[in-house]
Amino acid sequence: MNWMEDGMTSIPNVLLQNYKRLQIEEKEMMVLLHIYSFTQKGISFPSFEDLAERMTISSSDCAACVKKMIQKQVVAIEQGDQTGYEFYSLKPLWNKIAALFESDARGQSLQQAMTAEK
Amino acid sequence: MNWMEDGMTSIPNVLLQNYKRLQIEEKEMMVLLHIYSFTQKGISFPSFEDLAERMTISSSDCAACVKKMIQKQVVAIEQGDQTGYEFYSLKPLWNKIAALFESDARGQSLQQAMTAEK
Amino acid sequence: MNWMEDGMTSIPNVLLQNYKRLQIEEKEMMVLLHIYSFTQKGISFPSFEDLAERMTISSSDCAACVKKMIQKQVVAIEQGDQTGYEFYSLKPLWNKIAALFESDARGQSLQQAMTAEK
Amino acid sequence: MNWMEDGMTSIPNVLLQNYKRLQIEEKEMMVLLHIYSFTQKGISFPSFEDLAERMTISSSDCAACVKKMIQKQVVAIEQGDQTGYEFYSLKPLWNKIAALFESDARGQSLQQAMTAEK
Repeated sequence: MNWMEDGMTSIPNVLLQNYKRLQIEEKEMMVLLHIYSFTQKGISFPSFEDLAERMTISSSDCAACVKKMIQKQVVAIEQGDQTGYEFYSLKPLWNKIAALFESDARGQSLQQAMTAEK
Repeated sequence: MNWMEDGMTSIPNVLLQNYKRLQIEEKEMMVLLHIYSFTQKGISFPSFEDLAERMTISSSDCAACVKKMIQKQVVAIEQGDQTGYEFYSLKPLWNKIAALFESDARGQSLQQAMTAEK
Repeated sequence: MNWMEDGMTSIPNVLLQNYKRLQIEEKEMMVLLHIYSFTQKGISFPSFEDLAERMTISSSDCAACVKKMIQKQVVAIEQGDQTGYEFYSLKPLWNKIAALFESDARGQSLQQAMTAEK
Repeated sequence: MNWMEDGMTSIPNVLLQNYKRLQIEEKEMMVLLHIYSFTQKGISFPSFEDLAERMTISSSDCAACVKKMIQKQVVAIEQGDQTGYEFYSLKPLWNKIAALFESDARGQSLQQAMTAEK
């Protein structure tokens, strides 16, 4: 059980159940997970080579995945305080998931209200 | 933060860093994650349709992924106590990861011992 | 590594770092974790005996902890759709944590803005 | 959902369900969780003050908890490669949990075998 020392990467079940609705594909989800895992370990801007080393796809495939996710506004590249310092931010993803969750909750409340009225 | 109620699915970083060495591809890893996530919620034998509903691949693609992972001895289908009751087991995967981790640790110790001897 | 099958309970680091500010004590945090862990397994209203069985405190101590956390508006008891069906909700906790996080973020932005103005 | 960026600390359910059998108390479990959480963030030897800052107990209480857990052989202080470099290791804990899990599994198999024989 010593590999516990390397820790875990936790994915919200809400994300697992809804990434499809955010037009995210499986390969992209795996790139996301690797980015998130690197970030948790303090590596906030892993190179495409870092990503590809852990994956069965090439570094240019990784680059394409990241590019697509930036276009879909799921991942962002942000600037740190120091010049030239960049990092991946998954804030857009978490915000989209939160919005999805809230609109679903509103939908459910509405449905319950309508059912109750009958 | 209400989606906390749906919980998280935790993946050991050791798995994220080493699935490639176990000949597991990204699409298969995602199928694995979905199976693991279903299992945690008490659904121990999700159908290919259940899996495909959350994924961007078809149910027959899911079936192919599961079949390949059974062949690679990463996933197993086990029989429960009652007749006709089947469930997915990821024990083979966890065992492979544990073995990988131990052989890596042995390799490191050996290397340290050899370096110390010089 | 077979105990992976029993899954993990994930606590946001934000909660670990800030429960003190929400006036939650360690014993109460452990009761919270057990409630959360039970909920994830589909047991949404564990009895005080269920909780005490896993803890080194008595069931009446558990009851006192739960009572205090309801008073502090961290835990709530909600009614399900069916009559007589009750369950623990940690929504109040997640909301408090989210509020804390946002006010901290606002504080930081303000500080940055003021530093930038100088 | 931005606090996702701070990550999660994952506790095996097996640990939550069995720490009592390892003679670990709730306050000690919380100290353990904080140590584990610090370690995941790269701080492998947090001071008693670091721990106490996040807790409702004093730094000397934290010291007492750590001391007890070292005596119970749940936590160890290990030496790094460089002189004077120390860090907490939870290996003893994970090993104890793994041993517990295996002996339980053996007990179950034995029981099943005996039931089957009847």
